[in-house]
Amino acid sequence: MESTPVWRRPTLGAVAARAGVSTATVSNALNGTGRLSEATRQRVLAAARELGYAPASTARALARGGTGVLGLTMTTYGDLPVPYIEIPYYAQLTLGAMSAAHERGYLLLAMPSSMSPWMWLNTPLDGVIHGGPRADDPVRAILRERGVPMISEGRPPEPRRCDAWVDADHEAGLRLLLDHLARSGARRIGLSLPLHDDAYPRLIAHAYRSWCDEHRTPALVEEYASLPDYFTAEQHAVSRLLSHDPRPDAVIGVYSDSGHNILAAARHHGLRVPGDLLVACVSEDPDYATTTPPVTTVSLRPDRVGAEAVDLLLAVINARGVVDRRRLVQPVLLPRRSTRRAARRRNGTP
Amino acid sequence: MESTPVWRRPTLGAVAARAGVSTATVSNALNGTGRLSEATRQRVLAAARELGYAPASTARALARGGTGVLGLTMTTYGDLPVPYIEIPYYAQLTLGAMSAAHERGYLLLAMPSSMSPWMWLNTPLDGVIHGGPRADDPVRAILRERGVPMISEGRPPEPRRCDAWVDADHEAGLRLLLDHLARSGARRIGLSLPLHDDAYPRLIAHAYRSWCDEHRTPALVEEYASLPDYFTAEQHAVSRLLSHDPRPDAVIGVYSDSGHNILAAARHHGLRVPGDLLVACVSEDPDYATTTPPVTTVSLRPDRVGAEAVDLLLAVINARGVVDRRRLVQPVLLPRRSTRRAARRRNGTP
Repeated sequence: MESTPVWRRPTLGAVAARAGVSTATVSNALNGTGRLSEATRQRVLAAARELGYAPASTARALARGGTGVLGLTMTTYGDLPVPYIEIPYYAQLTLGAMSAAHERGYLLLAMPSSMSPWMWLNTPLDGVIHGGPRADDPVRAILRERGVPMISEGRPPEPRRCDAWVDADHEAGLRLLLDHLARSGARRIGLSLPLHDDAYPRLIAHAYRSWCDEHRTPALVEEYASLPDYFTAEQHAVSRLLSHDPRPDAVIGVYSDSGHNILAAARHHGLRVPGDLLVACVSEDPDYATTTPPVTTVSLRPDRVGAEAVDLLLAVINARGVVDRRRLVQPVLLPRRSTRRAARRRNGTP
Repeated sequence: MESTPVWRRPTLGAVAARAGVSTATVSNALNGTGRLSEATRQRVLAAARELGYAPASTARALARGGTGVLGLTMTTYGDLPVPYIEIPYYAQLTLGAMSAAHERGYLLLAMPSSMSPWMWLNTPLDGVIHGGPRADDPVRAILRERGVPMISEGRPPEPRRCDAWVDADHEAGLRLLLDHLARSGARRIGLSLPLHDDAYPRLIAHAYRSWCDEHRTPALVEEYASLPDYFTAEQHAVSRLLSHDPRPDAVIGVYSDSGHNILAAARHHGLRVPGDLLVACVSEDPDYATTTPPVTTVSLRPDRVGAEAVDLLLAVINARGVVDRRRLVQPVLLPRRSTRRAARRRNGTP
């Protein structure tokens, strides 16, 4: 039996031989290091081009006929483009994903959520990380049509067995806040809950009710419309919470600006934080370190979510055998003054 | 004279006529809005493809045979890849540039600083924003060779008349700090200065000496090597500053972590901040809001620098006639407790 000829990736040595230089010189020419004459550099680049040499970092992508480029986007909401890169969570997720892609020899292209199907059809991509998926998202249909590998950042609302996704462990994050508030003496913890068609509010509501059942405390929930203006809508929802009798002694919000909204509603009701009311929220906004008072937050670690998303997407693209297609990143608690047990309360419960 | 036939971009109406639908339906199909049957959507996309229709947002790029993709990178430093996306200044610059590109219908690709010439030769780009340029940067030579339009973020060390660049107004930023410290009572302001071959330290040193001359105050400068470990090197430089006799009553640092380094050196010398020493630095690090004490900073507004860079690059790509090719973004002062005039000093100077 004769051996079948197989195309092999040209080696650094082959490029060196063709250009008539050492392999160190090839390496310097391709990596922009060392001191080379312009003529030598040109000769090496020409030899590399002729042989189809690609450096190791992109070899895997190029060997598969890929582009070496990964896409990242957020779902579209009809006519309303979401400037998601300006939202702290997605800003950090984007940077985390980008760093992870670079480390693995890939580039990451963040696409605007308003991008037309036309551009989705024409931008060359090896795979896409799709943020905040909805059930009927048109971008998902187009990518499936094109055969572009895709994973979700955030659980799909109606997950299917084949879906691959990375998400923050939202239930664990909410429990971090609830346990922390309970330790700070809260006995009636209210929840301000957005109405939205992604999975997030549903996961939060479920985790909250389970915790309240386990701890035999009342579930106090007020809902608000998250579009178009969740600032005003959430302040009204918190106002309704604070009008309950007896009043909640703590309120949790679950969107980035919820802490600001709850503080505003508390001021409106003449309540001091943390003396009369403990306040906490799920947010990546660094401003909570300097509000009056600083507000306790849970961080979902979006940079980790972004890095895990790149790892999972590359596993799917390269069809690695056994892969955990559902990955949860553990949130962290950042306790601040808004949930510090008040002195008089501490005296009351020794 | 006969009129020359000119290729015209197909209109929405032409696509509608070909697909046998209304222009509103074409718009919905291309933008992923409205409720359409899958068959209709397919028919519209096929018609658009056949006619070569491109939506307005990318029409300009595609009409020029462009890719609609802008590149962003930082200079390479020999063998050492700089994970620049993890530096707060470049992280915010990247996000600002990305938002600005999306608003104008372009995509932005952040490239790792370690990328090889090979990838620079093979990644399709309409233009590149090149950060922190050095005089002999190999990436600049490659892009010039390929004829890829390029602008600099940061002034080139040896600017030429044709160079286009956007930069923070570093001199203005340093003057904001110096004036603020003088108003807080400082009379001997020390400067901790990095040694590096980009334009930044030179601009800072020049602005500092001019200000000291104008205000007839002594120039107190200690230099440190910025590579490989500027943390330790800067703490030693600040230690040398604090050993001057008489001692400086304020110290300015100009790198992102300088504030932390100066606080560490002050602690080492048993000095209280701001009681014995005022401290300030140029940084985008939000952690300075919660250090002990919080540290006064100047922000160079990297998000604005990124947006201006995209605007300038698109002007160069589209060869708009009169364009300001040198643009400075004005920094802002964020005063915090580290520069608050101490009570006893205030009593001394009524």
